[in-house]
Amino acid sequence: MLTALAGGVGAAKLLVGLAAVVDPAEITAVINTGDDLVLHGLYICPDIDSVTYALAGVNNRATGWGVEGETWTVADQLRALGGVTWFQLGDRDLATHLYRTQRLAEGATLSEVTAELAAARGVRSRLLPMSDHPVRTRVTLAEPPPGEPPEVGFQDYFVRLGHQVAVAGLRFDGAERAAPAPGVLESIERAALVVCCPSNPVVSIGPILAVPGVADALVGRRDRVVAVSPIVAGAALRGPADRLLTELGHESSALGVARLYAPWAGTFVVDEADRDLAPAIEALGMRCVVTETVMSDPARQTALAKAVLDVG
Amino acid sequence: MLTALAGGVGAAKLLVGLAAVVDPAEITAVINTGDDLVLHGLYICPDIDSVTYALAGVNNRATGWGVEGETWTVADQLRALGGVTWFQLGDRDLATHLYRTQRLAEGATLSEVTAELAAARGVRSRLLPMSDHPVRTRVTLAEPPPGEPPEVGFQDYFVRLGHQVAVAGLRFDGAERAAPAPGVLESIERAALVVCCPSNPVVSIGPILAVPGVADALVGRRDRVVAVSPIVAGAALRGPADRLLTELGHESSALGVARLYAPWAGTFVVDEADRDLAPAIEALGMRCVVTETVMSDPARQTALAKAVLDVG
Repeated sequence: MLTALAGGVGAAKLLVGLAAVVDPAEITAVINTGDDLVLHGLYICPDIDSVTYALAGVNNRATGWGVEGETWTVADQLRALGGVTWFQLGDRDLATHLYRTQRLAEGATLSEVTAELAAARGVRSRLLPMSDHPVRTRVTLAEPPPGEPPEVGFQDYFVRLGHQVAVAGLRFDGAERAAPAPGVLESIERAALVVCCPSNPVVSIGPILAVPGVADALVGRRDRVVAVSPIVAGAALRGPADRLLTELGHESSALGVARLYAPWAGTFVVDEADRDLAPAIEALGMRCVVTETVMSDPARQTALAKAVLDVG
Repeated sequence: MLTALAGGVGAAKLLVGLAAVVDPAEITAVINTGDDLVLHGLYICPDIDSVTYALAGVNNRATGWGVEGETWTVADQLRALGGVTWFQLGDRDLATHLYRTQRLAEGATLSEVTAELAAARGVRSRLLPMSDHPVRTRVTLAEPPPGEPPEVGFQDYFVRLGHQVAVAGLRFDGAERAAPAPGVLESIERAALVVCCPSNPVVSIGPILAVPGVADALVGRRDRVVAVSPIVAGAALRGPADRLLTELGHESSALGVARLYAPWAGTFVVDEADRDLAPAIEALGMRCVVTETVMSDPARQTALAKAVLDVG
């Protein structure tokens, strides 16, 4: 049994690789929900959906998010009506959000809905939201642009503002009152290997760690936790992880991420480009594995998955 | 200035006819919201939308509801996911509900959102929800089918159960606490003519009358109120109005409707097919006008509109 801590697109790629190497039914993914938002009355879980679509083989590889073969009839009409369109929702993707919102309104938990949606799409891995309680990543802007409040929701920062603003701080609203979703702690405690996917350390992995009990469970399994660096040669492959690390006082490098993960990850996987950092990472008390980590095609996803499993 | 009391499709047809005869900007429609529902988290106003789409010239004439040239990508995907699909929502129609739900969440009133959506579609008439407060038509089933509660929401009765069940009673939940939307009472008090459209007397006009103040305002303008019978030769042209009238103890005929409307409508328009009922209707103290009332094409919509205006 293998448990993965997952954000969105980077995690989805590694999970697809892992599911190609081991029985997908042996994989549990604990997925960040700090990015979730309610828009148009719809409950949207970007990271859960990215992972689900990728494992179902219906992810849109051109955009990196959403569903393949997507159409935009609703969005086009919404634009014509003068509606809110900064968060793009394709027609097929919308069905996911309608389904989820209706089921939540009927009293289902997010765990239940996530399992239903995964099953409906033929996903055999177990997908768990980090919590069934709402946890919302809130972003304090260093210099709010005109008309912006000092603190905004994560998707306001990430999508609406295009993460082109400096960040002064983060908080995970609701985390202290949240409980891990059913199965989250057990899946960490009982896994043969826990894989921390190459997701944004502060806004994807950070919220998962903020759910009471998760960090302690990881510490208890430190020798079985393998983390893959999302930073290669000092830069994020996608998104603002590099800038966020710097803005929040960390080092934008694989070493900077290793410092954050050292308390609970016994092994750290870095790219060949960061081979020079291995001694410093090992000095943190972590085993450092150097391999190709850039998953630019399915073969490389599988290759990284094999390298991670070999560590275990 | 002309004010119309409106349900859905029948009202929309007459309103299109009226807008062809008088300046659309001179028309105010007070629209039933008892049919409204929240589904998939979306706030749906079937009657407001039917009127808006018709006056915008984008109504779907084939189905009688929804938007012309509609596509069903979201609905098809939702069905594939195992979602709730008994209330059909086309892609273009969905944009309306997304817009409305988001604006309500932002704090706008239903009146404001209704005006925004009408303006975005180029509708020049003034469209008012009967109230900005929620009023929900609830239907008591005479013999609930297996698995059904004794009381269901209106759309459960109308769409999900296909109105193929006997009704023992109706109530308009929230009506006693609701206030007329801004402009509703004034539009009735100041209109040169108030037209009660050929809508379902009990579930379309009934909720409007249940909003405190509306019935009194109509009584005060009785000599300027013209109602068009939705029952022709004992039958509803569309929907279950005839059965509902009978089940609720009324007579399923133009005369039965006239009895309900006599307290506040000075003039009652019936179809040629009901010419024989004119004396009985006039005996109620109403003026009875006999004309062609079946709006089977745009020319007949305009003709009925002219006949109604001639009354005034």
